[in-house]
Amino acid sequence: MTKTNPGYFFEDYRIGQVIRHAVPRTVAEGERALYHALYPARHALYSSDAFAQDCGLESSPLDDLIAFHTVFGKTVPDISLNARANLGYAEGRWLSPVWPGDTLTSESEVIGLKENSNGKTGVVWVRTRGLNQVGEEVLSYVRWVMVLKRDPAAPAPETVVPELAKVVAPEDLVIPEGLSFDGYDFDLAGEPYRMADYEIGEVIDHVDGVTVEEAEHMMATRLWQNTAKVHFDATFREDGKRLIYGGHVISLARALSFNGLANAQMIVGLNGGAHANPLFAGQTVRAWSEVLDKAETGTPGVGAIRLRLVATNGPGAGLKGEDGKYLPHVLLDLDYWALMPS
Amino acid sequence: MTKTNPGYFFEDYRIGQVIRHAVPRTVAEGERALYHALYPARHALYSSDAFAQDCGLESSPLDDLIAFHTVFGKTVPDISLNARANLGYAEGRWLSPVWPGDTLTSESEVIGLKENSNGKTGVVWVRTRGLNQVGEEVLSYVRWVMVLKRDPAAPAPETVVPELAKVVAPEDLVIPEGLSFDGYDFDLAGEPYRMADYEIGEVIDHVDGVTVEEAEHMMATRLWQNTAKVHFDATFREDGKRLIYGGHVISLARALSFNGLANAQMIVGLNGGAHANPLFAGQTVRAWSEVLDKAETGTPGVGAIRLRLVATNGPGAGLKGEDGKYLPHVLLDLDYWALMPS
Amino acid sequence: MTKTNPGYFFEDYRIGQVIRHAVPRTVAEGERALYHALYPARHALYSSDAFAQDCGLESSPLDDLIAFHTVFGKTVPDISLNARANLGYAEGRWLSPVWPGDTLTSESEVIGLKENSNGKTGVVWVRTRGLNQVGEEVLSYVRWVMVLKRDPAAPAPETVVPELAKVVAPEDLVIPEGLSFDGYDFDLAGEPYRMADYEIGEVIDHVDGVTVEEAEHMMATRLWQNTAKVHFDATFREDGKRLIYGGHVISLARALSFNGLANAQMIVGLNGGAHANPLFAGQTVRAWSEVLDKAETGTPGVGAIRLRLVATNGPGAGLKGEDGKYLPHVLLDLDYWALMPS
Repeated sequence: MTKTNPGYFFEDYRIGQVIRHAVPRTVAEGERALYHALYPARHALYSSDAFAQDCGLESSPLDDLIAFHTVFGKTVPDISLNARANLGYAEGRWLSPVWPGDTLTSESEVIGLKENSNGKTGVVWVRTRGLNQVGEEVLSYVRWVMVLKRDPAAPAPETVVPELAKVVAPEDLVIPEGLSFDGYDFDLAGEPYRMADYEIGEVIDHVDGVTVEEAEHMMATRLWQNTAKVHFDATFREDGKRLIYGGHVISLARALSFNGLANAQMIVGLNGGAHANPLFAGQTVRAWSEVLDKAETGTPGVGAIRLRLVATNGPGAGLKGEDGKYLPHVLLDLDYWALMPS
Repeated sequence: MTKTNPGYFFEDYRIGQVIRHAVPRTVAEGERALYHALYPARHALYSSDAFAQDCGLESSPLDDLIAFHTVFGKTVPDISLNARANLGYAEGRWLSPVWPGDTLTSESEVIGLKENSNGKTGVVWVRTRGLNQVGEEVLSYVRWVMVLKRDPAAPAPETVVPELAKVVAPEDLVIPEGLSFDGYDFDLAGEPYRMADYEIGEVIDHVDGVTVEEAEHMMATRLWQNTAKVHFDATFREDGKRLIYGGHVISLARALSFNGLANAQMIVGLNGGAHANPLFAGQTVRAWSEVLDKAETGTPGVGAIRLRLVATNGPGAGLKGEDGKYLPHVLLDLDYWALMPS
Repeated sequence: MTKTNPGYFFEDYRIGQVIRHAVPRTVAEGERALYHALYPARHALYSSDAFAQDCGLESSPLDDLIAFHTVFGKTVPDISLNARANLGYAEGRWLSPVWPGDTLTSESEVIGLKENSNGKTGVVWVRTRGLNQVGEEVLSYVRWVMVLKRDPAAPAPETVVPELAKVVAPEDLVIPEGLSFDGYDFDLAGEPYRMADYEIGEVIDHVDGVTVEEAEHMMATRLWQNTAKVHFDATFREDGKRLIYGGHVISLARALSFNGLANAQMIVGLNGGAHANPLFAGQTVRAWSEVLDKAETGTPGVGAIRLRLVATNGPGAGLKGEDGKYLPHVLLDLDYWALMPS
């Protein structure tokens, strides 16, 4: 019997099953520095302890996407090893900042199952929770993937499709304890715009482009202990290309969005997201954002802005074709909530 | 109106104008480790807390060039975005070590303006100061760049060309508080030579070469939050090449200079510097140094050595041609003061 | 006279000579993060402070191979600069964990000398010790290399070939103070297997492959301040290839071995090792292990498993040909002891 991990197949999942994912991870100063080396990240609250303290926090937390990637990475050996597609995200909420020195674990509960009509694959919905070393939940989100069946002849489970919110309600967003933008220094943050300066429907082209290298996306993906073969082994795909982890595109696009959205400081909600087309090394990533909504939060002066963040490969325009499908130059279509001075 | 940063054009600068640059940055253990991964840095004082303590410091400071790159990087969106050339440096002084956990900001004062005769560009001189979280100045230097005019028809400002020292006077160099080479361990430092062993005019070939990769220079440049497009976007230049940040060459050459100048521990003055030719990935960087001067400092046993540090692309000999221009293999010609056991 | 390091030649070594290697190095959080970015490392004890504390340690130590590479790297300017081949390792023991913030130095004693019959080279055996900032030994191993003679006419020294143990005796392995697997969480560690579940002779294919990039191996090798030209300078070899540091292969293979040996947590002994064939960027590294032996240690519940770890370039099968030589796809054949729940 082999001792290596064969991963879960579709028929291994049961509604209500809770999977504790392996390998807890302490994240600290080193991960922060690497994040700044791998992505053009400049949001001041994650760059400077002094700036974070002026915003009422004890120090600069680790980037919200470090929390996301670390929690996500742990789920890969149990959820994605035999997955054929990452279909969607919903109901994502950041519940507590992650501080340097915190140790993260994650666990997933199976909340939906639906066999596909071809009998070879099925869709699995999981709610994944990230926990810190004292058991506090730092992140929670739903993700669904298409997973291979081990045995096509295995009987289909009862279909359960969870009802998921299209958007996290603003009142469900968690504002980090102590956060205040009363003493916010717009000069240091890099731009003068507060939430009131953005119109719903406004589109911002983030201008800059980043050409991606193999070493960079592999280092990033390894850092999150995401071990999916397709990202690392050039002999795995027939075309000899290494598929870049979708989360690398999320981080690149979010970092690029600083130019025009420098004050959209903290990510607190993930409403949805699609990895529209694959990215490979050598391509150049650009990004644009659209303001989808704005809301007040329970904390005076702290507004929540809902943004569509689109990453593209090159200069192509538009999002979807007449057939409703993403155009070939679109890499990512992400829908999230961020906090900014209102 | 676009919310992204259009940068400053020549006519936006005024003599006496002070620009507070955006995005404060906390630098710590992670930046130190990355510095050692990206450059072959071996000067013992920046490699070992124990060695630094034996030299009278509380711990190992961050490399002087981490301070330089971080302070410099912040100026890029305001000074270099529409710059066409980085023309020179002068009067650079390191005023206080940067310790892990310090937060750096920077600001620049416009001290010179001169429109070029073509009417399309002008030269801007700025004095840039790097400050830590308690407002202490850690670094100060003058830099001048050639910047595009937004509107060639805009009237030329009054010409002001600052008078700049050719060399920082030895008595103006700041010796870090507590520094002492009395208990200096030459074995651990790597070489037996003190300042007295070097002759003015002596030339040292640093022997080793480093072939540069795209991922490395981009990671380094991002780490300093220097976002100039030309370093990251392979579609920006017509030839599809990414121009390597000149500071990457400085750090490579300084690290290579360990071999022959292992005891030139701390950089305290920058007299001048020219980025003679561009560097691109795939090229191999070498370096040589020339001893330009030697001076005592106010601290007994701590000498100041003035060095020309030349980085080259490949094995070519010589610095300038008969026409007084740098030869094509010369990348960098830097003139700096370092502290070493006298 | 040149001030750069010419390295030691064969006739410079004397039996009993102790060489204190240069450049002490403080290793901390940043090195840990980079290790996780450069290698697919997942052993829980090095990934999580909380997990390490549950195993009786004060926090997560730095990876045993960080200690090895750092200690080894310091020896390169004195031992390997004029070496033509790295011939073997023996009697390696990890004596104390390395904690973030520790400063490492290393020194080597010459314990064997044998001139080769060609008169141009000789074999040098050294016992290298790694020490921390309070002088505690953290690592000790024997290594032998083939070194050039400066002058082929120089007389041969008396031949001394040290007697070296084929295997470190289990009773000589040092169990870190406080280590206990009594509260070991196999879920979090990633696999359910204890030492009793492994059979002597069992072979485990670690399944995954990693395609290696130039930027990655150079960053890793620089991080350990290993400055051998052949790893960094593409103009050094006639074929324009940069030879990858053998230790990079060790770390890659050890990290890959998580899949099937997730509970072989700590490396405590190095019995031997051969770098069978060179690795170059673009190649894909895989690994398999064979269980060579098992032993109890003085600490109840903590077993010692002796493993052969073989790294390969690609899918080829087998280790040695009929001629007793390593097959061309074999990169590394390492023999080590690890601690795991018994």
